[in-house]
Amino acid sequence: MLLTDAEHIAGRTGMRLELARVAVRSATKERGVPGVEPLLTTDPAAVVNDESIDVVVEVMGGISPARDLMLAALRKGKPVVSANKELLANHGSELWETASRAGVDLLFEAAVAGGIPLIRALRESLAGERIHRVMGIVNGTTNYILTRMSASGASYQEALAEAQGLGYAERDPTADVEGFDAAAKAAILANVAFGAKVVAGDVYREGISAISGQDIQAATRLGFEIKLLAIIESDADGALGVRVHPAMVPNAHPLASVRDSFNAVFVEGDALGQLMLLGRGAGGPPTASAVLGDLVDAAHNLTMKGAARKLELRDVRIRPIDDLRCAYYLRLLVVDRPGVLAAIAGVLGRHQVSVRSMEQDAPEPEDGIVAPTWARPGTPGEGEAHLVFVTHPAYERDMQACLHELRQLDAVRRVGGLLRVAGS
Amino acid sequence: MLLTDAEHIAGRTGMRLELARVAVRSATKERGVPGVEPLLTTDPAAVVNDESIDVVVEVMGGISPARDLMLAALRKGKPVVSANKELLANHGSELWETASRAGVDLLFEAAVAGGIPLIRALRESLAGERIHRVMGIVNGTTNYILTRMSASGASYQEALAEAQGLGYAERDPTADVEGFDAAAKAAILANVAFGAKVVAGDVYREGISAISGQDIQAATRLGFEIKLLAIIESDADGALGVRVHPAMVPNAHPLASVRDSFNAVFVEGDALGQLMLLGRGAGGPPTASAVLGDLVDAAHNLTMKGAARKLELRDVRIRPIDDLRCAYYLRLLVVDRPGVLAAIAGVLGRHQVSVRSMEQDAPEPEDGIVAPTWARPGTPGEGEAHLVFVTHPAYERDMQACLHELRQLDAVRRVGGLLRVAGS
Repeated sequence: MLLTDAEHIAGRTGMRLELARVAVRSATKERGVPGVEPLLTTDPAAVVNDESIDVVVEVMGGISPARDLMLAALRKGKPVVSANKELLANHGSELWETASRAGVDLLFEAAVAGGIPLIRALRESLAGERIHRVMGIVNGTTNYILTRMSASGASYQEALAEAQGLGYAERDPTADVEGFDAAAKAAILANVAFGAKVVAGDVYREGISAISGQDIQAATRLGFEIKLLAIIESDADGALGVRVHPAMVPNAHPLASVRDSFNAVFVEGDALGQLMLLGRGAGGPPTASAVLGDLVDAAHNLTMKGAARKLELRDVRIRPIDDLRCAYYLRLLVVDRPGVLAAIAGVLGRHQVSVRSMEQDAPEPEDGIVAPTWARPGTPGEGEAHLVFVTHPAYERDMQACLHELRQLDAVRRVGGLLRVAGS
Repeated sequence: MLLTDAEHIAGRTGMRLELARVAVRSATKERGVPGVEPLLTTDPAAVVNDESIDVVVEVMGGISPARDLMLAALRKGKPVVSANKELLANHGSELWETASRAGVDLLFEAAVAGGIPLIRALRESLAGERIHRVMGIVNGTTNYILTRMSASGASYQEALAEAQGLGYAERDPTADVEGFDAAAKAAILANVAFGAKVVAGDVYREGISAISGQDIQAATRLGFEIKLLAIIESDADGALGVRVHPAMVPNAHPLASVRDSFNAVFVEGDALGQLMLLGRGAGGPPTASAVLGDLVDAAHNLTMKGAARKLELRDVRIRPIDDLRCAYYLRLLVVDRPGVLAAIAGVLGRHQVSVRSMEQDAPEPEDGIVAPTWARPGTPGEGEAHLVFVTHPAYERDMQACLHELRQLDAVRRVGGLLRVAGS
């Protein structure tokens, strides 16, 4: 874009940007970008140290050597534009402090929900806002998988394979499906929206690999969509909850209708009420668009001493997941005999978990032919039934204590899904 | 907020803002804001001329005297934050030129979709983006009315009365329901997203007062929601289409699920793909939030000479509505006899309008009792039927020529709804 659209950008922004050098791993690989060959180097330090270069863009990823290169660039007074969520989520505090001391920008719109101007909205437009909660779908791969499971009845494995076929999921999908990617983004959002010193390791994290077709079907029947959410919320007592897990989202909530590989982030604040930003989270062009927006900004601010925006983080108390209070969805495979419900209700009641709705989920096979239980994994066998509960708000610690006791009951064959309800 | 949250704002932004004077119409009215009384004046020029005041916020509305006051403030080198869409949509060019010459900011986030940081996203984050289309629900009143009609089967008049009862619609709802408010916002969006010199009067405009229950029901059956949209789109030949009208939006489009008085704006660009921002468009707190964000920005930029962002507009050719090409929904009340469909299809065919689907819409009354035609306005009488067509993309001029000829046909009792399809 910088090579081809420089005139367009100059016309719209008054900034004439020139691509000076590009550090790459392989100097021989065909790039397919006319005019870029003479600018290539395999030595990234040469870019940082080149006195003729004003702004550094870091899109190499990973902690090392990106961290040292970025620190060096900032210390030399060069603004840095980065898309490196892993580095920012683990060493953000050090990087932002270094940028502040040098009086230059460290911009990272592309690191979270790439094509969505979320970071700028949080840092600038909502600068005066008291934000209560940021809740978002920040991983396109898992949203694609969950959308397919919900729309076509595909199993988790089938939907994952489909996502891999389309290039949405990697061969080793762990970082996406187990929520590590979303957790890094949650940490960055906690930094930006709450000014809180949170790193990726502080984030409570669950992935989507345990979501079953039964959970998806139950969600549909009950009026929910299952979404992998990153949630950052401030408590009345000043603690910050930072968590990533699949959640039941009511259909009426705007996040429920975010489909396929789209990202969307929902922000709730004192004055603005509710705000949602939806767009492409990943992919080359949206990321490039975000990087370019930051680049124009960095160039603009560089021309004026002191214009860079600082990000100062303070220590906060992270709320343990046990202290979370929300409604829960719980699916149990039980022996279908009198007294079972009473036993389960007794366990829930003893732990102050109050039931909002319960349904027995044992649909008759449509063709009247009952396959043997071993041929229908997850399907209740003869004399078994699925019980699906939705609770009123309860504490996580109480819910976990319930699960522990329920697993001891003879009548409970398996504790299936446990999902938190969000956005109701 | 400035009086109560100054410390919070200073902590997050490093800007210590002080409310110096407030111009009001009535000095005696009870304000309910502790500490504001000594700051009140009934002379707005006194605020503009006060040398101790650095930034002016204009939320008085209307063209006069706001225009002269804003020009005076800008010429004195004072940045202006405004929520005045009427003024900006009619005199934006003059105001932005004055701001540019003075080297100060003219910021107006609150003027369009108040609680959504849309203007900033367009001016800054998407500065390098080639935007093709901006399409949005920018009027909360009409979205509330259409949502009620769709969700509860209320008539337009009932839904309007409900909106008036809740304070969403004014006693004289013309500005909202006839699309004048949305047209002003469309002009501002054309300025910001396309750098195009467009004023409110350039915008093609239709309101929602002719939308009937039949149209709403047909939309639901066909998988659409009816929304009042502001659409700004660039043609391949460089012309700009700028229009406000109700449109059929397919259910799968993110704008279809924007309910109640929410606003949402959908942006399509070369690199970013699709982006949607959703939030509260109006109301005191979201507007205040937007004004405050601008105020922090103006204060920040004021401390650095030359930091203000310019908005330069160029002349563009506005595409006449006749040159629009899109799919159409058309509802006709016809005499129910053989040959009628052939006659109508003949008219459409002669004007190169190709039909994608047709259905006859004359549902039997559920209780079997047929009320006289005069008691069921809009309902087909005996021997009459509603025909509902959805066309393939066609030119507006051809579609209008069809309507003209269809009205001449004996068998066509009435041309009901004609709605453009958007977002498919």
